Amino acid sequence: MIQPSNDNEFYELDDPTVLPKASGFLWNERMMVQATCRGYMVAQFMQPEPAKYSHGPNLEAKSFMQPEQGYYAHHPGRFVYVKDEAGRLFSAPYEPVRARPDQFLFSVGKSSLRWMTESSGIRVQMTLTLSPSDVVELWRVKITNKTPQRKNLSVYPYFTVGYMSWMNQSGEYRPELQSIVCSSVTPYQKYPDYFKNLEFKDKTFLLADHEPAAWEVNQEAFEGEGGLAFPSAVQQPFLAKGDARYETPVCIFQYQVALEPGEEREYRFLFGAAKDEAEIADVRRRYFLTKEGGLDGFARAEAEYREVIAQGKGCLTIQTPDPALDNFVNHWMPRQMDYHGKTNRLSTDPQTRNYLQDNMGMSYIRPSIARAAFLHAVGQQHESGEMPDGILLFEGAELKYINQVPHADHCVWLPLCLAPYLDETDDYGILDAVVPFAGGKASATLFEHVERGLGWLRQSRDHRGLNFIHQGDWCDPMNMVGYKGKGVSGWLTIATAYVFRVWADICEKTGRSDRAEQHRLEAQKTNDTANRYLWDGNWYARGITDDNVVFGVSTDSEGRIFLNPQGWALLGGTANDDQRRRLIQAVTDQLESPYGVEKLAPAYTKMREDVGRVTQKHPGSAENGAVYNHAGAFYIYALYSVGERQDAYRLLRKMLPGPDLDDIIQRGQLPVFLPNYYRGAYRQFSRTAGRSSHLFNTGTVPWVYRSLIDGLFGVRGCREGLLVAPQLPDHWPQASLVRSFRGARFTVRIQRQPGVATTEVRVDGRLLADGIIRDIVPGSEYEVEVSIPSAQ
Amino acid sequence: MIQPSNDNEFYELDDPTVLPKASGFLWNERMMVQATCRGYMVAQFMQPEPAKYSHGPNLEAKSFMQPEQGYYAHHPGRFVYVKDEAGRLFSAPYEPVRARPDQFLFSVGKSSLRWMTESSGIRVQMTLTLSPSDVVELWRVKITNKTPQRKNLSVYPYFTVGYMSWMNQSGEYRPELQSIVCSSVTPYQKYPDYFKNLEFKDKTFLLADHEPAAWEVNQEAFEGEGGLAFPSAVQQPFLAKGDARYETPVCIFQYQVALEPGEEREYRFLFGAAKDEAEIADVRRRYFLTKEGGLDGFARAEAEYREVIAQGKGCLTIQTPDPALDNFVNHWMPRQMDYHGKTNRLSTDPQTRNYLQDNMGMSYIRPSIARAAFLHAVGQQHESGEMPDGILLFEGAELKYINQVPHADHCVWLPLCLAPYLDETDDYGILDAVVPFAGGKASATLFEHVERGLGWLRQSRDHRGLNFIHQGDWCDPMNMVGYKGKGVSGWLTIATAYVFRVWADICEKTGRSDRAEQHRLEAQKTNDTANRYLWDGNWYARGITDDNVVFGVSTDSEGRIFLNPQGWALLGGTANDDQRRRLIQAVTDQLESPYGVEKLAPAYTKMREDVGRVTQKHPGSAENGAVYNHAGAFYIYALYSVGERQDAYRLLRKMLPGPDLDDIIQRGQLPVFLPNYYRGAYRQFSRTAGRSSHLFNTGTVPWVYRSLIDGLFGVRGCREGLLVAPQLPDHWPQASLVRSFRGARFTVRIQRQPGVATTEVRVDGRLLADGIIRDIVPGSEYEVEVSIPSAQ
Repeated sequence: MIQPSNDNEFYELDDPTVLPKASGFLWNERMMVQATCRGYMVAQFMQPEPAKYSHGPNLEAKSFMQPEQGYYAHHPGRFVYVKDEAGRLFSAPYEPVRARPDQFLFSVGKSSLRWMTESSGIRVQMTLTLSPSDVVELWRVKITNKTPQRKNLSVYPYFTVGYMSWMNQSGEYRPELQSIVCSSVTPYQKYPDYFKNLEFKDKTFLLADHEPAAWEVNQEAFEGEGGLAFPSAVQQPFLAKGDARYETPVCIFQYQVALEPGEEREYRFLFGAAKDEAEIADVRRRYFLTKEGGLDGFARAEAEYREVIAQGKGCLTIQTPDPALDNFVNHWMPRQMDYHGKTNRLSTDPQTRNYLQDNMGMSYIRPSIARAAFLHAVGQQHESGEMPDGILLFEGAELKYINQVPHADHCVWLPLCLAPYLDETDDYGILDAVVPFAGGKASATLFEHVERGLGWLRQSRDHRGLNFIHQGDWCDPMNMVGYKGKGVSGWLTIATAYVFRVWADICEKTGRSDRAEQHRLEAQKTNDTANRYLWDGNWYARGITDDNVVFGVSTDSEGRIFLNPQGWALLGGTANDDQRRRLIQAVTDQLESPYGVEKLAPAYTKMREDVGRVTQKHPGSAENGAVYNHAGAFYIYALYSVGERQDAYRLLRKMLPGPDLDDIIQRGQLPVFLPNYYRGAYRQFSRTAGRSSHLFNTGTVPWVYRSLIDGLFGVRGCREGLLVAPQLPDHWPQASLVRSFRGARFTVRIQRQPGVATTEVRVDGRLLADGIIRDIVPGSEYEVEVSIPSAQ
Repeated sequence: MIQPSNDNEFYELDDPTVLPKASGFLWNERMMVQATCRGYMVAQFMQPEPAKYSHGPNLEAKSFMQPEQGYYAHHPGRFVYVKDEAGRLFSAPYEPVRARPDQFLFSVGKSSLRWMTESSGIRVQMTLTLSPSDVVELWRVKITNKTPQRKNLSVYPYFTVGYMSWMNQSGEYRPELQSIVCSSVTPYQKYPDYFKNLEFKDKTFLLADHEPAAWEVNQEAFEGEGGLAFPSAVQQPFLAKGDARYETPVCIFQYQVALEPGEEREYRFLFGAAKDEAEIADVRRRYFLTKEGGLDGFARAEAEYREVIAQGKGCLTIQTPDPALDNFVNHWMPRQMDYHGKTNRLSTDPQTRNYLQDNMGMSYIRPSIARAAFLHAVGQQHESGEMPDGILLFEGAELKYINQVPHADHCVWLPLCLAPYLDETDDYGILDAVVPFAGGKASATLFEHVERGLGWLRQSRDHRGLNFIHQGDWCDPMNMVGYKGKGVSGWLTIATAYVFRVWADICEKTGRSDRAEQHRLEAQKTNDTANRYLWDGNWYARGITDDNVVFGVSTDSEGRIFLNPQGWALLGGTANDDQRRRLIQAVTDQLESPYGVEKLAPAYTKMREDVGRVTQKHPGSAENGAVYNHAGAFYIYALYSVGERQDAYRLLRKMLPGPDLDDIIQRGQLPVFLPNYYRGAYRQFSRTAGRSSHLFNTGTVPWVYRSLIDGLFGVRGCREGLLVAPQLPDHWPQASLVRSFRGARFTVRIQRQPGVATTEVRVDGRLLADGIIRDIVPGSEYEVEVSIPSAQ
């Protein structure tokens, strides 16, 4: 029913009703599409701000990508109606007719999405892929007659365009382009925007390789009284060849096809955005009219896109007792990291913490991109050391939405995300790269940029030594805690202790022992402060408000415990052994659910005025009380960092959907990406708990990947080479993996051995004293045997 | 098929498919609803910015009201599903099931909207009214068994709530309130907005007078695979009593009813917005639980609302050879003016020109509101004389959208709109009222405010004496013409000439002859300048760009002639007799269509970079080339002002929909309001020409009303009293009217008389030398007989 296909490059779903929102996504450097099993789609491209060529039926707000995208009858989508001689109608993939298909398959692949719908012996196969860089969807629609009779069919690809503009919109068929061209001009009110908009791709086109018998460009005329499920125009022999004049445009072709038994016919389409007709003509020439080596541009683009996506592979291939884990880690996690690094979440001003973490993920797959990003980011640091709320990617981009609200945590992420980059690449030279500060007057090395960031964190503290929260920090913007300038963040204070230690290690490794010592002292001092003001007896408080109210503590009836301070207290050495036991138990008891750990509990049910915005996120609704995977991934990483491998694995496994069908159905999502959250508040609202946000923009993935590399499989880089120290869960007898690292290839076999007391690592038969493989020769292959105790 | 009902208080439509977008609208001081014959609705209320309690299915943009509102399957609406014992389903009024009813009636009234849908002998009557001031819709739903059999029915009122918020939304049934309550909190990002939002009515409720048998609050659960046309939940015996947790909420009740032949059952509902449950409880108490004089609050509110609306009546009741004209003028025009004056178009920063013109309309129906508005407006005038782009109505309101773009025409409107107020009320004392300028330092009389405004217009001119256009002027914001500071507006220059003359007359009437003389000289100078630089041989140019390109002239292939400069050249005395003949002919030949005069022609088909934004309005689409009624109304007013009564009447009749069914169908609108435009570009796109914008926000109505009073019926106020000088069209043998004026009542009978050479006016049998009825006694009734020549 839901399964990986044979080569693990696809996930397959054979019923469009069991996971109605199951989706896959594709992207290239300029665009992103998310498509569901039923044919609904969201597509965005950058010009440079996000724009659409297929819109909702009304005036949509421009916003960041929303979780739990809702679908409705006129939601944008790509469909094919098929009508037989008797007037019987169905649509592929499933919407809008919703005729129950005899056969159905939705295949979510890395570089293509495929749908197969068969009804009364007529099979429709739809395939979507992208090109490496054009704003165009590449569609194949194949119709096959599986019956023993000749069939006369009308086939109507129906690609929605929607409400393009309140000021103007129109559409018509252009025979010389074999295209439907829908036009609008982005409205502007202030004249300077006119010049900004001049190059916009404001036209939507559907370009066909076969000349259509008829067409319709007018949504209302198409539907008539029959509506989407039985459009009046489809009830006629031919579409009316209409146009749209300030009417909602749509792209619909009609093909007449007579198919002998077993015969098939394929149509190909290009659907996308263009500036003008000349650009559409150029697209047509390049994709349909020009051949090279027997292939036209369409087929070549498909192949090139497949190749580009294949290059975004991870540095880890595993084989464990859990094939679902193998499939997810080997195929889908690197792809999701690659998406983040390549597209920056289709934003022109990614939040600083997102930008840095997304590029931390790129350290494992395309480290040169990560390198450039770290240097780009510090080029926008203020001389005070403060990092901005967002990193502008283009000339003329602006800080928008939440990036206009001051958050206090951005300086934390630079050393944190640099550390694994250095582990992976040993490119310590990056620390000496000289980059100007914002404004361009002063310059400094990256090392000094990081030092200034730490200095800013050290100074942004109250008289007790706790870090001010300003109007928010990571993950759960509690914007009323400290807006008067007094409130502090428990998490952020603990996080700075961790960051001082991380940076101290890097100082040490680059021969700066004095600095290292200084940062370690600072970490200790911070931890002492945290323990003095934030330890609540069994866990750490989340913060203290402007009015000196400590919250996230045992006396609170809502928001009693927050996950983030606990995990980071493990990472930063804040918690001693006793505290560690207590806080882990508290998390297990109060935050763990069948779908992972919740970010806070009990979820807020009403505004708490001194905490703020997080309480706008109702329980059982959005992020408040959710299993917020980004926070969960950190907690897992923290558990591995202190050797709590059983707890860590249990939570990891809950985060990654497994083969359990009930579990997948509750989450509502094919296991092809990690969403930013699963619905939480499990103890209050179990009906909806576990549901996927369906939003694949999240910093979760690199931290899970890092947990696998540094923790579970223990194949982490260090200055000397590769440190091998796996932390398999008790129930795994063995695991094996291939690790690509600094140009070499390590085949690692981990085996439980009765009689082995501690982990033994052998390379080419030779036992290593400290588990570190040194003197790695690029291009070499290493065979690594790891023996672990059977009663570990 | 489409007709006024007997008492003229309603317009009726007996088929939901012939005019699918036919709509009516209701408003009170805090809200507005527009509802279609098929059940779709748009509702907005002020808190103080416009807000909704019933949303689209996706994240909607917040925007000003759009023309040609599109409808789609999940558009907000209010519907009632009815299911009989056999499972047969239909919905009232028509959507979403679209079962063709056996009988249907949509009745658009002044203070209520009514729908009747009968299917297989089951009649559903829905009635909507509002209260005078609460944000609540008052619904009656009556089910009648018209069959000879007993009927067991399930009745499901289905009121959409939609996507309330990206941050949170939920809904549940609250038995103690007998209500479904849907909750959200308006998201904010900058903390000061938290405090702004504290009093928001973020809850949507449906409150019932009968306890429901079951309910559903979850849109997706309700629809299931059956979709809107055949919801899965309705296929079950009972709704599931579900809730919504970050799922799209909806308000659906289920009633089980057994009706004997002829029996009927009525349910009443309140649907609206509330801050919290306490407010809903209060609404319940006031409307359903408290009786006074045998009526509960619901029934009393209906009566009070009817009374409030009835008070907004006009000062003119006509009886002419054209009953459709009578109906529209007597019933619907005052109502539309009242809407504008009472709601300010549901804006907190109405554009200055709109605010003044809307209140010019109030001069005829509620002059005290107009008076206050004029004084309020000049309180925001700068000391330089410049009027702001919008008038802020509330503390904390801000100039938004187009009001952030500097337009050059705002000073024109103050004297123009004051003039009819003075004619109507003779309240010249208003000119002596002292009002501060913006900033509150300096103050001046209203007279001086207007003088400063004229001074500003006089100074905002180039070396030739033509008025700068800045980034736009009235009606057709051509924002690239003068953004460099050089371009000028032909229309505005001509308009200032007219305004100087209007103001000169007012100066004269208040004994300021010197000022009057000065303004008349200025008008003459301006007219000379206009004729020197703008006359193109047969009409006046629209403007001259920054680069000295004259446009709106005979050598242009697009935008060759604009309506506004022509009409205003008649008003302002710019055109001599020869010019007048030529420009009227040019308008007739190039701009007149079966649906009225277009604003410009030929419509632009592409951007003309030196003109700008108007060319974003594609022909056959929005306003570019449209029959823009506001401009048309001015032209009609201008024609009457120079005695061109035949042309004036022809265009007036084209603007007001008549009894011709084909014409009404092309416009797509019941004749209950004047829309801001009919689709134009008739010569290019005749298919769509004439279609109504369905947008009733427009400055058209007061100018049409003024054209009737000052022109067609000639019953205009002046200092001495009432000037009677009708300009009937040739084909009318007679007309009669009742005019309310300065507290008196004038019954006027106009009759063509063979042998009469010029118009003769008799009051109570006495012939008036100059047609002016003097010494009007409030409370008196006057009988006025007007004889006009038969071959006039």
